[in-house]
Amino acid sequence: MPIVLDAMGSDRYPDPEIEGAITAALELGEEIILVGNEEIVRPKLEKANTRNAPVRLVHAPDVLEMTDKPVEGARKKPRNSMAVGMELIKSGEASAFVTAGNTGGANFIALRTLGRIRGVSRPPLTAVFPTRKGFCVVCDIGANVDCRPEFLVEFAVMGSIYAQKMLGIERPRVGLLSNGEEASKGNQLVHDTYPLLEKTRLNFIGNVEGKEIFQGDVDVVVTDGFVGNVMLKSVEAVSKLLIDMLTEQIKSSPITMLGGLLAKPAFRKLKKMMAPDEVGAAPLLGIDGLVFVGHGRSNARAIYSALKLAHQAVQKDLLGALRDAIQQELSSTPPTE
Amino acid sequence: MPIVLDAMGSDRYPDPEIEGAITAALELGEEIILVGNEEIVRPKLEKANTRNAPVRLVHAPDVLEMTDKPVEGARKKPRNSMAVGMELIKSGEASAFVTAGNTGGANFIALRTLGRIRGVSRPPLTAVFPTRKGFCVVCDIGANVDCRPEFLVEFAVMGSIYAQKMLGIERPRVGLLSNGEEASKGNQLVHDTYPLLEKTRLNFIGNVEGKEIFQGDVDVVVTDGFVGNVMLKSVEAVSKLLIDMLTEQIKSSPITMLGGLLAKPAFRKLKKMMAPDEVGAAPLLGIDGLVFVGHGRSNARAIYSALKLAHQAVQKDLLGALRDAIQQELSSTPPTE
Repeated sequence: MPIVLDAMGSDRYPDPEIEGAITAALELGEEIILVGNEEIVRPKLEKANTRNAPVRLVHAPDVLEMTDKPVEGARKKPRNSMAVGMELIKSGEASAFVTAGNTGGANFIALRTLGRIRGVSRPPLTAVFPTRKGFCVVCDIGANVDCRPEFLVEFAVMGSIYAQKMLGIERPRVGLLSNGEEASKGNQLVHDTYPLLEKTRLNFIGNVEGKEIFQGDVDVVVTDGFVGNVMLKSVEAVSKLLIDMLTEQIKSSPITMLGGLLAKPAFRKLKKMMAPDEVGAAPLLGIDGLVFVGHGRSNARAIYSALKLAHQAVQKDLLGALRDAIQQELSSTPPTE
Repeated sequence: MPIVLDAMGSDRYPDPEIEGAITAALELGEEIILVGNEEIVRPKLEKANTRNAPVRLVHAPDVLEMTDKPVEGARKKPRNSMAVGMELIKSGEASAFVTAGNTGGANFIALRTLGRIRGVSRPPLTAVFPTRKGFCVVCDIGANVDCRPEFLVEFAVMGSIYAQKMLGIERPRVGLLSNGEEASKGNQLVHDTYPLLEKTRLNFIGNVEGKEIFQGDVDVVVTDGFVGNVMLKSVEAVSKLLIDMLTEQIKSSPITMLGGLLAKPAFRKLKKMMAPDEVGAAPLLGIDGLVFVGHGRSNARAIYSALKLAHQAVQKDLLGALRDAIQQELSSTPPTE
């Protein structure tokens, strides 16, 4: 079944999308439906070397711009590419939806179009952080700023399934983000959530801090959308500062510049680790449909990675596994010890 | 009036303390009182080249070890170096106290020994973050995990005075840490605090994110101790990961290693920015006495920087300014516009 790609998502739409779609269609052997404004996309698609790849265009007249506020924009422009694309999932014509557009907008439109998985109170936004040893699934990174303990348990159940199915981790270690590892640490939400997570069947390893995340000692981290968002943005900002400053310093003298040139492979590896095309995209967990959101800065390679991720999610029936896990968690009686 | 230095604070106590105290006493022309266990400190102090610096030793029989839990340890070992040292401030024999020991422990002992500035509800822990353009004062980074809006207003008042007096910023820009810059963003605490900060005489610039902090676009950032602590530790962890990985990558081949060698001055500048001896120490704002806590990893240079900072705080009457600002804020009627 085809995968839908938002042709109007990335900062430089629709070029990365067209190229990424062609590569994905050929490599994955799956039809890709590009959804976007025909006037903009059609001429570019016709000029592209499609190599007879199964790529089809579906028209969506409204264009959500980066300057549009996500929710307001989605309301004023109901026939935008995200809404039209997700309807193809809803109707069963396609299996998954991928966009490099605004995450908040995608989440809002997905909630309206596809709704929540039965039993999920609040779908979180998810980020997949690169770590020393691989990846760490962190949710919520911004959808729900004030959370109840049950929401965090749901995040943990869904994050765990995602890590299992998509990162191939058999028994993902689940941590609760806190201001210290001891069980006594935490704010009210952490104190209330800790015992609930202990009662689940998850591999709950207790409270974790930044160092466990970045050293790769935890696979799934749950927190409320306020804390998760502050963490994500701070970590992005400090990484950018370090890399910018190092680059400036290296450029400051001919000798350090030569050094920088020779050490380039080392920098390249670091950059690769932090590039959006490595992770590809983050899932909208809890939405009753497979939706992946890539980075706005995505290039064709990143779009291809996101489509490949979506394809993998279809193959592994991620959505079915999420539905089952939530049902099981809801109906489970905690084991008495 | 002498400044007190905890001789048992740093990870490698008392050597960095002895050396730092001698340098500070000579450079600042101020007596330094070393407080610590005589049996441990006396022999080392006698062996050191004191160059007739005015450094005196005061005995504190109990030793708080890194393995002691801060609060518990402070209770079981009441005659520890922090308690004995702070009593010298309390009694008026000395002007300020500096330690490179545990921040939580120092805060607990300071609250018991020196108490709060009149009008302060909850003294925060403060960190001074290096940024692209200088420094940013962030509080609370861990003392109060669940905060009321008034606490954050107090943090803002005190952080602002600190930035003014100690960083020389005339009208410090105060930001409220949030998940977006728009006034509509934030969790319940942010929504409740925003209008209160607007009513103060502070230079409140609204909600800020990590990028404003690290780009140097805000001078004082307030948040609750849970979020502040998570941010601090995440930022430390990701910085460490980036630098470790880059170092490993550079060491992975002879060519990149040569490159790394040539680019060394660039790395040095970056390391310097992130080293504890740059910032020196963080103040315990809201404590009714001048207390500064340096990094456990402090070397003699960092100890000297911390003593210099404390000396500067005495010269500028930081404590008097903090007391006045809190009184003024408490009694102020918000200007009607």
